[in-house]
Amino acid sequence: MEHTMRAAVLFETGHETLTVRDDLTVDDPGPGQVKIRIRATGVCHSDLSAMTGVLPQPAPFVPGHEGAGEVVAVGEGVSRVAVGDHVVVCWNPPCGECGDCRRGEGNLCVHIFFGMTFQPHFKLDGNAVYGFAGSGTFAEEMVVPWQCAVKIPDDVPFEVGALIGCGVTTGVGAVLNTARVEPGSSVAVIGAGGVGIAVIQGARIAGAAEIVAVDPVQAKHEAALRFGATRAVRPEDADAAKAEVTGGAGFDYVFEVVGRSALVRQAYALTRRGGTVTVVGAGKNDDHVTFDMFQLFFDNKKILGSYYGGTDPRREYDRLIALWRAGRLDLEGMITARLKLDDINQALDLLRSGAAIRTIIEV
Amino acid sequence: MEHTMRAAVLFETGHETLTVRDDLTVDDPGPGQVKIRIRATGVCHSDLSAMTGVLPQPAPFVPGHEGAGEVVAVGEGVSRVAVGDHVVVCWNPPCGECGDCRRGEGNLCVHIFFGMTFQPHFKLDGNAVYGFAGSGTFAEEMVVPWQCAVKIPDDVPFEVGALIGCGVTTGVGAVLNTARVEPGSSVAVIGAGGVGIAVIQGARIAGAAEIVAVDPVQAKHEAALRFGATRAVRPEDADAAKAEVTGGAGFDYVFEVVGRSALVRQAYALTRRGGTVTVVGAGKNDDHVTFDMFQLFFDNKKILGSYYGGTDPRREYDRLIALWRAGRLDLEGMITARLKLDDINQALDLLRSGAAIRTIIEV
Repeated sequence: MEHTMRAAVLFETGHETLTVRDDLTVDDPGPGQVKIRIRATGVCHSDLSAMTGVLPQPAPFVPGHEGAGEVVAVGEGVSRVAVGDHVVVCWNPPCGECGDCRRGEGNLCVHIFFGMTFQPHFKLDGNAVYGFAGSGTFAEEMVVPWQCAVKIPDDVPFEVGALIGCGVTTGVGAVLNTARVEPGSSVAVIGAGGVGIAVIQGARIAGAAEIVAVDPVQAKHEAALRFGATRAVRPEDADAAKAEVTGGAGFDYVFEVVGRSALVRQAYALTRRGGTVTVVGAGKNDDHVTFDMFQLFFDNKKILGSYYGGTDPRREYDRLIALWRAGRLDLEGMITARLKLDDINQALDLLRSGAAIRTIIEV
Repeated sequence: MEHTMRAAVLFETGHETLTVRDDLTVDDPGPGQVKIRIRATGVCHSDLSAMTGVLPQPAPFVPGHEGAGEVVAVGEGVSRVAVGDHVVVCWNPPCGECGDCRRGEGNLCVHIFFGMTFQPHFKLDGNAVYGFAGSGTFAEEMVVPWQCAVKIPDDVPFEVGALIGCGVTTGVGAVLNTARVEPGSSVAVIGAGGVGIAVIQGARIAGAAEIVAVDPVQAKHEAALRFGATRAVRPEDADAAKAEVTGGAGFDYVFEVVGRSALVRQAYALTRRGGTVTVVGAGKNDDHVTFDMFQLFFDNKKILGSYYGGTDPRREYDRLIALWRAGRLDLEGMITARLKLDDINQALDLLRSGAAIRTIIEV
């Protein structure tokens, strides 16, 4: 009898509920591939966006892209990772060879990523099942190109590895690599969810003097303050905070961590002339943000897109582990719930309600 | 009898012709002010934009903002410049004291600039006459705050000083300070007028490997190639150049040096993922450029406004003079005509026709 495993499946885009099945199969790893036994996975807003169709993703599919686990099998020709290695799943893996990778911008490499996204990873009842963003970590096992399995030290907990796999790299990386926040700066962060908290921590690590969290959900204010925000305000109070903190000039750095054009406009207005707007949120194709040509020139502002930490993700994982070891990056504190794969729909509810910073699924 | 002087005046916004009058007067310099005898002034597209009303400017006014000359009188309390000093007119002068100035971003300082812009500098028939952007260099003499008179060595020709006063600082500064072009990069420059040629020279100085000039006017292609472009194409051939030069990935750096939303969109499309779009052109308030929120995030591109060289202009003047002395920045070569103040309307025609890189008016 074939070996089967458990995973949470979305059968049709637009549905909001996942079905946990115990009869999926994965192939043995082919040449250059590895099989990972997932041990922990974070639940990220992008998973919801793929389920609702905001982010493009063929169905049926297993969501989840922020995971860590153990290598349990390797295919022919794999020499860089071995059975027993602890790994973070890198959902947008650098090929290591192309111009983007050579330049240290491995987050931009699409050579492996595009291939993964449109190849099904799982089978169910004889039918192909995709993995979200080419991964699909809401599953016990997955088979991926070896470049997706980034080795981490054995003493890093899987739940810490999982957080590093996407949200924390995205948030801290946007601060350290894309915006390059300087010590003593004033910073505003629009959206204090999981990635927003990572941005706040990044700004604190970078030595920002003032960090203002902007979020409509009161419950998130307390978390923002705990992780390093110097004040937390509702969106309608952001202008007052700008006046108080910056004397009206505007913040040196503003981060948009939601992915909505109206909030990028707000971010632009909160930024001082010469300052930097960093767009971390993943927005929709049909949502457009508009800038006035005179302002664009006269304001001398920078508008920066930041994708998956703005650098080679492997390099960022190493730095984040070093910061976590040094006690400067609080990752366990970001975990607001630990649930089992059977509770996956509860985890999605926690995300939708805004009650979660990060829920970890112990797979 | 009162001392009178000559200047070119626009009596009503929207008119395209200047009137040269020899009976304007300027006050003696008050406390903190200096009087400059203008010796050379460049004719820049922004002068036309102020005349047509694209850039806001009260009328009647004397256009011209790119000039150099000699200090002929100083007011009470002026100790940093003296009679006889050769100076560049800095039309957006750093006050030297505010946060922007302390940070080295004196181009953003508006403390002196806004005051200058809305105070008339000249008198004619008993009526007030403004100077464009607070200066008005199409005049024999002007009285300005001492911070507008930036001392340069006596051996720098006035025409070189004039070019440095705006267009060259704007163009080269956008490359070196705002975009920070790296050696070996691929660069495209949309618009090969005076500032575009300065951008091309800046990219050459920064060590760019490929510099593609994009302009509909065939006559400008030759100039672009002469100043360092590795190829020059018409706008409809820019995509083909991108494919040939970058293998389709896009340029590392693209400069928009016109100030039109459609061209910023073209610049964005010509830029590689992770690359940099720099908006140097001064656009209109009612012209809007739009970006798709998914692309903004996924493309990881940078969109940078660049205003007056993106740094303290005094610092940039010093660097440009050093580069000019070293023979690495060709300024005399950018002067396509030398005319007298009486020929000012001919100079404007040369600008409109695209035949001029820079016309110098010897005042």
